[in-house]
Amino acid sequence: MSGRPVAIVGGVTPKWGARPTTWAELAQEAGAALFRAVPALRAEDVDSLFVGAAEPERFAFQSHVAPLAAEQMGLRPHKILQRTELACASGQSAIRSAYAAIAAGLSDIAVAVGVEKMNLPSMAEANSAMGCVMDRPWDGPHGATAPPFFAMVAQRHMLEYGTTEEQLAAVSEKNHRFANTNPSAQFYEKTFPREKLLRLPMIAPPLRLGDCSAMTDGAAAVVIVGQEFARRYTDTPVWVRGTGQYSDFHNLANAGSLTDWVGLKHAAREALGMAKITVRDLDLAEVHDCFTISEIVEYEALGLCGAGEGGTFAADGRGAVGGDLVINPRGGLLGCGHPLGATGVAQAVEVYQQFAHSVPSARQAPDPEWALVHNLSGSANVHSVMVYGREAAG
Amino acid sequence: MSGRPVAIVGGVTPKWGARPTTWAELAQEAGAALFRAVPALRAEDVDSLFVGAAEPERFAFQSHVAPLAAEQMGLRPHKILQRTELACASGQSAIRSAYAAIAAGLSDIAVAVGVEKMNLPSMAEANSAMGCVMDRPWDGPHGATAPPFFAMVAQRHMLEYGTTEEQLAAVSEKNHRFANTNPSAQFYEKTFPREKLLRLPMIAPPLRLGDCSAMTDGAAAVVIVGQEFARRYTDTPVWVRGTGQYSDFHNLANAGSLTDWVGLKHAAREALGMAKITVRDLDLAEVHDCFTISEIVEYEALGLCGAGEGGTFAADGRGAVGGDLVINPRGGLLGCGHPLGATGVAQAVEVYQQFAHSVPSARQAPDPEWALVHNLSGSANVHSVMVYGREAAG
Repeated sequence: MSGRPVAIVGGVTPKWGARPTTWAELAQEAGAALFRAVPALRAEDVDSLFVGAAEPERFAFQSHVAPLAAEQMGLRPHKILQRTELACASGQSAIRSAYAAIAAGLSDIAVAVGVEKMNLPSMAEANSAMGCVMDRPWDGPHGATAPPFFAMVAQRHMLEYGTTEEQLAAVSEKNHRFANTNPSAQFYEKTFPREKLLRLPMIAPPLRLGDCSAMTDGAAAVVIVGQEFARRYTDTPVWVRGTGQYSDFHNLANAGSLTDWVGLKHAAREALGMAKITVRDLDLAEVHDCFTISEIVEYEALGLCGAGEGGTFAADGRGAVGGDLVINPRGGLLGCGHPLGATGVAQAVEVYQQFAHSVPSARQAPDPEWALVHNLSGSANVHSVMVYGREAAG
Repeated sequence: MSGRPVAIVGGVTPKWGARPTTWAELAQEAGAALFRAVPALRAEDVDSLFVGAAEPERFAFQSHVAPLAAEQMGLRPHKILQRTELACASGQSAIRSAYAAIAAGLSDIAVAVGVEKMNLPSMAEANSAMGCVMDRPWDGPHGATAPPFFAMVAQRHMLEYGTTEEQLAAVSEKNHRFANTNPSAQFYEKTFPREKLLRLPMIAPPLRLGDCSAMTDGAAAVVIVGQEFARRYTDTPVWVRGTGQYSDFHNLANAGSLTDWVGLKHAAREALGMAKITVRDLDLAEVHDCFTISEIVEYEALGLCGAGEGGTFAADGRGAVGGDLVINPRGGLLGCGHPLGATGVAQAVEVYQQFAHSVPSARQAPDPEWALVHNLSGSANVHSVMVYGREAAG
């Protein structure tokens, strides 16, 4: 049982980067772009707003951002208004909440918007905020923010499987190449060939600058509706067909294997099972490449290849157009940047545009029917997965 | 249409106050108490966790608190895990999210927990965090934190309707009297007769110390399940029968009347309409008395009395046991304190205990069938309402 069918019927991702704008202005920009992109959308028909935002309290010194976003977007939610936070997966959480509310019949026409303002005058302040995402009192004193944690994952993966820096660079090269087809991306019109990536400064060995996603200001928004409203807005609705999440631990002392992401296996099994498909049916996947090593471990946990084969999968281009399936065609977190609350929403926007065949051919998945979106959060201790299909459940 | 019936089948509110505990310890305590209070609850059966928390980023220097709460409570959510933030209504948002997920069939057995740690070594730091709840760049420079804003509401209500300080004190006296029946309350075993309240220090005229809810450390948790699981846990399930929210504005420059809370009227109409009842059917209401004037304006917006009659309603004791209906029997925010994310959950716990006739007779509503829970957030710009019933929808 999963309520009435729910579809994404349009979406936008305005320009991402180090933007001279406030949190509120990013929300305003996304709202204006959304009404332009979905001409049939009328503000008074939007009954609910779901806001994904990770740390506006630290990055923008503003809490209670849901009504702020509503005001900036010209919306007056009269069914449900809320903000969801799940660190790097905050945007996907907003979409999942909208999905549940609509499936339950508590909302008919909703907007999910993700917003994050991360570039501050003091980047030390911004980095301190990022440290709050891990278990601060236990893991913080050991320096466990994101780059050192994912560096440990990479080191362990190299030890166990012989994964190489060149294989890591292959992920970054692919995603930056895709980002060059996406004007919204932070690193649009910046080229990162493998030999350049391998000479960039080391951040946390073996992760170099090009192995790490950036601190990004950005927003993204989608319109999500119940089945009977879908055709009002689009001829190419994208149907929510599955959802899965899994939370393993918080304190790193309670973590299991660094390289076997059990939580992702659980979450993907749940979401794919709900859609009644397997990973082989996917045409397209947006996965959480906060670091190059993340995408490699995700290939394995998703079952796209065997344990330890993720590096080879990357080097062989099996996630590029013409490979097994298209992975991170919008450019991923590495190419687009990673405004925490916006990322999960922008991934859904890409799925919508892929299904509508409205992306440049250099990143278009051939005639896609099924897509998966994955976000991890924190120290990969929580995994969140959505599965989208071209057809509603029969 | 609103999916399958959903019930709250148990809940706890551990001790609130200025506690020498961390955010994580408050969550742990709520989890331990919940398993004691609901003996049939097994950790492995809980598929989802919804965490209400307003500003752990500022109060506890910790974000990504959903998996932290899961770990501390001994839960491993495998369907949905998220934190919701809606300032002072964050706890109710967690319950609404759980309700939507279960109604949609995406979760069967969930826990909603609200946690806030607000007492810091530096209360200036804590007050700065509270300032983030209003529109910081526009309203912050004018000093518009909560006490000055609600003081303006009180001044305007006095001007328009002749409301008196004595009538404000009547609200505080009632709620503190109720709090003396509730060992969890921050102000348990503290008496506040009206004459004492009227001599307390002025905070923001006309609001004195006893007119303001406190900075509180506290947590509360409930178990929420789909219809077919309810009788496993309790003989007295409390059914979610209605929900309503309304968001008017964010920037105070966009506010309408200070004393006519249109958003609450909309939200209550929606929630009561969904339950197919009127305000006259309510036996019990938990309303958001962050300040005494709030409860008075809420009487009016809910339609318990006419515009301008809220002060008289309070002075006449129409919200006490033996009055029109019982209002804020657990002691309200004034008597219990107001740990932002926990309040909305604790209000639902009170409804559960009232329906189970397990509260002291001094605050027991006579044989309750219907209850309403209200939270406002920010500058009363968002109103959130739930309606609970003793019977499932037929």
